[in-house]
Order: sequence, then structure tokens, then C-alpha cells
Amino acid sequence: MNFCLVFQTISWLIALEGVAVGLCSGVAYSMGDSQRDIFKLLACGGIAAAAGLIGIFVTRKASGQPGFREGFAVVTFGWLLISIFGALPFSLVVGMKWYDAIFETLSGFTTTGASVISSDLQLYSGYALPQGIESLPKGILFWRALTHWIGGMGIVVFSMAFLPILGKGGQALYNAEVPGVKTRSDQFTPRIASTAKILLLVYCGLTLAETIFLLFGGMETFDAVCHSFATISTGGFSTKNSSIAYYSNPYIQLVIIVFMFLAGCNFILLFRALNGLPLKDYINEEFRIFFLILLGSSLVIAGYLFFSDLIEPGTGIAYHHNIKDSLLAAAFQVVSISTTTGFSTANYTVWPTTAGVIIFSLMFMGGCGGSTSGGIKCMRMILLWKFSFSELRRNIFPHSLQNIRLNGDRMAVSTINRVLGFLMIYMLTALVFQLLFTFVCDMDLLTAISASVTCISNVGPAFGKLAPDQSFAWVSAPAKLLMALEMLIGRLELYTVMIFFLPSFWKK
Amino acid sequence: MNFCLVFQTISWLIALEGVAVGLCSGVAYSMGDSQRDIFKLLACGGIAAAAGLIGIFVTRKASGQPGFREGFAVVTFGWLLISIFGALPFSLVVGMKWYDAIFETLSGFTTTGASVISSDLQLYSGYALPQGIESLPKGILFWRALTHWIGGMGIVVFSMAFLPILGKGGQALYNAEVPGVKTRSDQFTPRIASTAKILLLVYCGLTLAETIFLLFGGMETFDAVCHSFATISTGGFSTKNSSIAYYSNPYIQLVIIVFMFLAGCNFILLFRALNGLPLKDYINEEFRIFFLILLGSSLVIAGYLFFSDLIEPGTGIAYHHNIKDSLLAAAFQVVSISTTTGFSTANYTVWPTTAGVIIFSLMFMGGCGGSTSGGIKCMRMILLWKFSFSELRRNIFPHSLQNIRLNGDRMAVSTINRVLGFLMIYMLTALVFQLLFTFVCDMDLLTAISASVTCISNVGPAFGKLAPDQSFAWVSAPAKLLMALEMLIGRLELYTVMIFFLPSFWKK
Repeated sequence: MNFCLVFQTISWLIALEGVAVGLCSGVAYSMGDSQRDIFKLLACGGIAAAAGLIGIFVTRKASGQPGFREGFAVVTFGWLLISIFGALPFSLVVGMKWYDAIFETLSGFTTTGASVISSDLQLYSGYALPQGIESLPKGILFWRALTHWIGGMGIVVFSMAFLPILGKGGQALYNAEVPGVKTRSDQFTPRIASTAKILLLVYCGLTLAETIFLLFGGMETFDAVCHSFATISTGGFSTKNSSIAYYSNPYIQLVIIVFMFLAGCNFILLFRALNGLPLKDYINEEFRIFFLILLGSSLVIAGYLFFSDLIEPGTGIAYHHNIKDSLLAAAFQVVSISTTTGFSTANYTVWPTTAGVIIFSLMFMGGCGGSTSGGIKCMRMILLWKFSFSELRRNIFPHSLQNIRLNGDRMAVSTINRVLGFLMIYMLTALVFQLLFTFVCDMDLLTAISASVTCISNVGPAFGKLAPDQSFAWVSAPAKLLMALEMLIGRLELYTVMIFFLPSFWKK
Repeated sequence: MNFCLVFQTISWLIALEGVAVGLCSGVAYSMGDSQRDIFKLLACGGIAAAAGLIGIFVTRKASGQPGFREGFAVVTFGWLLISIFGALPFSLVVGMKWYDAIFETLSGFTTTGASVISSDLQLYSGYALPQGIESLPKGILFWRALTHWIGGMGIVVFSMAFLPILGKGGQALYNAEVPGVKTRSDQFTPRIASTAKILLLVYCGLTLAETIFLLFGGMETFDAVCHSFATISTGGFSTKNSSIAYYSNPYIQLVIIVFMFLAGCNFILLFRALNGLPLKDYINEEFRIFFLILLGSSLVIAGYLFFSDLIEPGTGIAYHHNIKDSLLAAAFQVVSISTTTGFSTANYTVWPTTAGVIIFSLMFMGGCGGSTSGGIKCMRMILLWKFSFSELRRNIFPHSLQNIRLNGDRMAVSTINRVLGFLMIYMLTALVFQLLFTFVCDMDLLTAISASVTCISNVGPAFGKLAPDQSFAWVSAPAKLLMALEMLIGRLELYTVMIFFLPSFWKK
């Protein structure tokens, strides 16, 4: 392992993070935060930038090209270190305890969107935040949204676009971060750097477009930008305590539904669509099935709400024979959870149990491959379904060959095995963390199970005591750190972190 | 499909079932049931025997050998039909509604042990059973236990041992019923009929041994036989309302723990052990891992109970610093759930959540391959674990070959794929049934999820409103029928039932 090179690359990331925090103090100034808060925020940025520059200076003699081991190390330790420096503003400006700050930052960078910030959260000073999220300085709210936006596209894509220093090693980093399933339609360009630039272009374009649409709906500029950051990254941090339920405007909810959906689709397909290619070229199998699953789930849940006597506790909306609100609420929660965004306009845990089963299942699935969403991914789900069907058929035709296609391409046996291995490790990880949570924190079974799934899938809200109207403030400190770790494992699609525990990784 | 032959074989099974019900009326007579009940029970046996004989007469011209299609048909429809005739005593003698009787019978034959019989159950007459299970006539209690015992070994093994009529087709039946994973140590004898006889010998031997041990503990003969039937088949129907908690005698609980464990082990290994083969020959990898999982789970849960201030609601036992009762209660529930028996001496849903997570996970696993237990089976779990690890390693050595061993034998890729396919279909089935339950019955999320798992794994108790101290009486009629179907799908290890839904099954 070329530790010097790994350290240098991470130092670059931290220095850039310092610049980003510094920019937030500019936002804080223009939004009229107190001078004290602006100064503290600037200091946080300065600390990160200085640490990064010192690291770059110390490792200036680094040489050689990063191999796959270095790739894995940069990704895993890079995420961990920038999360520590990213937690400084929460700790120094807001006064949050260190584990709360780390939780919030990793929840931001991994685009999970689970938050400890609420009126129940105890600060170092012993005081609480009386207005919850809405009592935070604007600079902090902006940094909170920005962690999503930075994390969403992946530090690696940023690095590839901005840091030519990586050279050939980019391939190794890319392999470490991007899902293992590839089909022809994904091979947009052989050059990783160009791919990264294209993804970045789509990413920025979507963010800008959503901001404009939200402004048209009457949302304030600051909130529009923060919500766009949290939507396109499939994060879910809101600037309001009641999340999107704050905006009773159906137009705003609809805009967010559409952009959450787009953020859950393969970005390369979106780029093609924007380039005016014929429909059938970019609406591939995964997109179609993803769309149908979301549509079907929304309709079933809307039907249940429509015929129920339920009154939404937070907003007071009565769903009975109210087709508009039933459809809007069902579609919003379904799209929000399946794209692993985690915004909410309603508390699905008080809905009929059918809605609970569907939403819980969607937490496992997540969005499409090549998107910023978490979870197992729709593409893998399709392959798993086809594999099951193929194994069932083999009872009748035992000697038939495995012939599984995705988007028209025949999948290699090794690809299928990789997907199956992914699912197994996903399940095992979720199980182990459930058990660990119950060791260090007092929570009921449903809360423990769903918390583990929401963390590994980077969704945000869960069930039980972590329903959408609850915060993570009450969770014990060790459980918060375990949850943050599980979010990271989920975000890096398991293998990247797990691989460090294999003895053979450390052998020559 | 040779329907005539299928019909003939099933007719034989029903005729034999009639004889078994008739025997129960003998037990009813000797235990002093009312003449009315004895007569009704005898009539139920007569109906089944007559139906079977008519079926045999009608199909007397059947010819040809059963192929694999006929094998699948006999197994699936055989279970369904004998469950309908087996439900007659519950309906005619006790007066249970038809869907309750079908549920109870399928729960018996599939060795699930989930019961609707309680003081809450409404009968056709509008009355209830004031004393729950303990108000049933002895003949019915015996038939209830006997359904476990018959189901446990599998109607097919019985058929192979008793019905030489099947001839070569036995192989097809055996393949349809016995897990797809085979290792060298399982290939005890090439002749299926001999294997069936050996399994039957072990089965009867264990039942007899447990009965004797229970008699020594002071249990009444009738209860000892019924509990032995329910233990060795990993069923779980008790003759007492409070299950084994009725017997506060630690000796009796210990005997049942040991025999539940033995019933969860591979019977061929047990036979070898009885034959005096050296230890290392029969304590194979699966056995060792199964034992260690159970031991570890029991110790962790016992530790939690030991340090808790919990007082068991049913029995009033205080676990705090009470090492004997903590260990006994933990071991009993762990062994009962993991072997999918479902007896209970305590309500694990009020225990610390760690116990809940462990017990819920054990519901998925089940016992060893080649046992009467349900679930995914320990053997498959080991293969899945090894597969995951092998896929993880492939990130470092992408071109290494898949080399997965079980009990020392290298597993073929097709075997691994079959196991992976099994897991996928298991998960999908559990998910679909969860969703179906919520369509037709009002239950919370945890109850729906755990009910689906307990049914497909043939365990019995679940979580939430189906905790060990609850009955299934409150579940809606359609949900009861769905649960009964899911039990059957689980008992037949998924493929056997699923295969009927494949169009290619019906093609020439």
C-alpha cells in the first residue's frame, strides 16, 4: 500500500472541503447570521484548509500511480476524514456533541438525511435548540445541505473532474465506487474523466432547474437552493422542522416528486434524453420497471388512503374520498423513500399496514444504478428476480443454460454472482447492525430492524420510534456512531469498506 | 401428466388417513371421551377411508410409472387433500368453522404448530371453548398431535415405506420433497426405500425415547405421547394452553430441549451415531455450526435475562441474578424457535430487543438439512455465508475460481445457484404473503412481517399480536387460509408448489 499517495489525495480533499466551508460563511454573511457565527464558520473552514495544505506539503514527495488497494483506501478513509472535518461547524458553531456532529455530517455526506437536530437534542452547553432545525444559523443550514450535494455525486467523481493528479488511478477509484453491474447503455464514453464531467453537468443542471421551479412556486431562494441540493443528491435534509409538509403548496410537492424521481434515474440516460435522442434509446428496461414499481406502489397506497378515514396527524389533511391529497401524499412518500431521499409530507407509519409493507420494501430496493440513490438498486433487483425465475425453471429443464438479460444484454455468470454476493452481504450487514444497535441502545424490534435498513440504504426515516416525524436525537451515542458507520458502508456499496477486513487485502 | 395415477396415489393416502383417524377414536374411547365424540371421530375416519377406497376403485385401471411431473402433483395436491379430510374431526367433533379447521390441520401436517384454538375462538354454534385447548376431547388432542407426527416425516417417506405401489416413481417423489443440497455423508444408501425405512426407524426411536424420558419426569402418559409427537416432528402443538410453561419442572423442560435439538439434526447422522460410528464421522460441519449458533444465542440471551429486572409475565419467574432460570428459558426458546418447533415456556417478545433480533433471525434459519425442521436450513446458510465471503475475496483476486466446500466436499456451481435461488424465492414469497396478509386482515407491520416468516419457516409463534402467549384466533378468515397456504409452500421447500405456476411445467 502506497500510504503516502493515499494521504496526499485525502489531503487534497480536505483542503477543498475547507474552501467549501469557507463559502458557507459567505452565505452566512449574506443571509445575516450573527458575526460570531460567521467568524466561527470561517474558522472551521480555515482549520480544514490548513490541515489539508499541511498534509499536501508533508506528502509532496509522493510518487507512483494509485493501484486498486490505494483506490479502496482513498475512498473509505477519505469519507471518514472529510466527515470529521465536516463535523466541525456543527460542533463549534451550533455546539452539538461530537458524536451528534459526526452523525449529522456522515448522514449528510452519505445522502442519508437522518437528522439528530430537533428540539430534544441536548447541546454541550446543556441547552437545547428551541426551534429545532429552524433555530440553526443559515450558514449551518447551507453547509448541511451542501454536505448532501457534495456527497451525492461522490467525492470520487469530484476528484476525477477536479484533480488531474490522480491520473490512471481514477479507474481504480471509479471501480471502487460505482456499482458492479454494467450494460452497454452505460458505456457512454471510455474515458472516466469525461464520464465524470457529464455526470457533473447533469447533476448541476438538475439542481439549477429544480431551484428555478421551486422559486416559481414561491419558495424563498435560500430554501429553494438547500432543498434542491437535498433532492438531487437524494439526501433529504430540509431547512424546516416538518420537512416538505411545511409547504402545503401542491405545486412545490409535485416539483419535488418529479426531481426526486429524476435523481433516482440513471444520470447517463438523463443526459441522453436531454441530448434529444429517440425515446426508446434511453427508456431502458430498468427505467421502465422502476417507473412501473413506483406508479403501482403509489396507486395502491393512494387507494388505501382514499378509502380510509385517516386524518394525517401533522397536517390535518383528511384523506377520505379526497383523491388529490391521497394521490399526492402516496406518490410523495413512495418516490421519496424509493429514491432514498427521505423528505416527508406525511407520517407513513400511521397509514394502513399495506403502505408500511410497500414502503419498507422500497427502502431495500432504492433507485436505479448510476443514480445518486442508495439501496440495493432496481437493476440488481431485476437481475435477482430473473435469476430466481431461471432457477425455478431449472427444476423442469435441469440442463438449460443460465440466460439472463438486462437492457437486452446477456449478463455474464460472474456478474450475476456479484449481484447475489452483494445481496447476501447487504442482508448480513443489516442483520449484524440490528444486533449491534440493540446492544448499545434501548429500542424495540421494529425500530432496530428498520433503522438498520434505512441506514444501509441511505434513506433517512424508518419505522417505530424513528418514524418520519421523529428525529434520531434520542438514540444513544454508540448507536449513533454505529449508524453513521452503516450509512458509510451502504453508501460505498459494501465491498469497498468490507474489503479492509479481508486478510488477503493486506498481503502483497 | 398421468392424472389417473396421481389420483390413485392420493386416494391411498386418504384411505390410510381414515385409518389413522379411526385409531384416534380408539384413544378417545380409552381416555374416556363422551360416546358422542367417539362416534363422530369414528365417522370422520370412515368418511376419509370410504373416499379413499372409492378413489382407488375408480382409478384401478391406472398404469404407467410416475414421472417427475406426477411426483410434484402427488406431493402438492396430496398435502392439500389430506388436509381437507384431516380437518373433518375439528369441524364435526369440535364444531370449528371450516377455515379454522383447515388452518389447524395444515398447521399440524406442515409441523408449524400455530394454533387458532383458544378461549377467544368462536365456533359455528356461536359458543367458544371456555378452557381453550384444554377443553378439547382427548381424541381430538391426539389427532392434533398425530397430524404433526404424520406430517413431520413427510407423507412421502411414509408412502415410500408403506406403498410399494409407487415403484420407480419414489425417486421422483423423494427429489420433490428432500432438500436439493446433498453431500457425501448424506448418501447413506442408494435405495430410497431403505433410506425411508432408516429415517422412520430413527423417527420412531426418538419418539419412544422422549415419551419414556417424559414419563420419568412425572408427565401423564397421554400428554407425554402427544408432546413427543409434537417435539420429534418439530411441530409444537401442546395439550396445554400455556404450552410447556405448564410444566414448571426443569427436568421436563430439559428433556424437551434435548429432543427438540435432536429433531433439528440430520437424521442420518443420528442413525450413524446410534450405530456407534466414531464421533468425527457423524459430527459434520453443519452439526458443529448449528450447535455453536444455538449455544452462542442461548448464552447471549441468558446473559441479558440474568442482568435484567424482568419478571416473566406468564410464570412469574424473576430472571434477575437467577442463573438457572435465565439459562433454561433462553435455551428453551432458542432451541424451540431454531428447530422450528414453537413450544414455549416464556414470552420472548417482552425480553430485551437483542433477544428479539436473535430469535427472529433464527426463525429464518431453521434446523439442519435432513431433519424435520423448516426454515432455510443451517446447511444452506453456511453455503450462503461461504458464497458471500468468496464473492468478497473476488474483489481482490478477480480471476480466482469459486471453491466452496461443505462437510469437506467441493460444492458444484449448480448447487450453489440452487441454494441462492432458494433464498431469493424464500424472501420473495415471504414478502408477497406479508403484503397479502395486510390486504385481508388488520394487523401491524411487525405482526405481518413476522407472521409471514413464521409460516414459511413452519415455526409457529411470531411477534407482535402473534406472540407466543397469543393464538391465531383473531386473524381474519382469508388471512388464515393464506397462512395455511404459506405453511404448505414452506414445508415443501418452495419449488414443489411454485413449479405449478410455470407455464413450461404444463407443456409436453
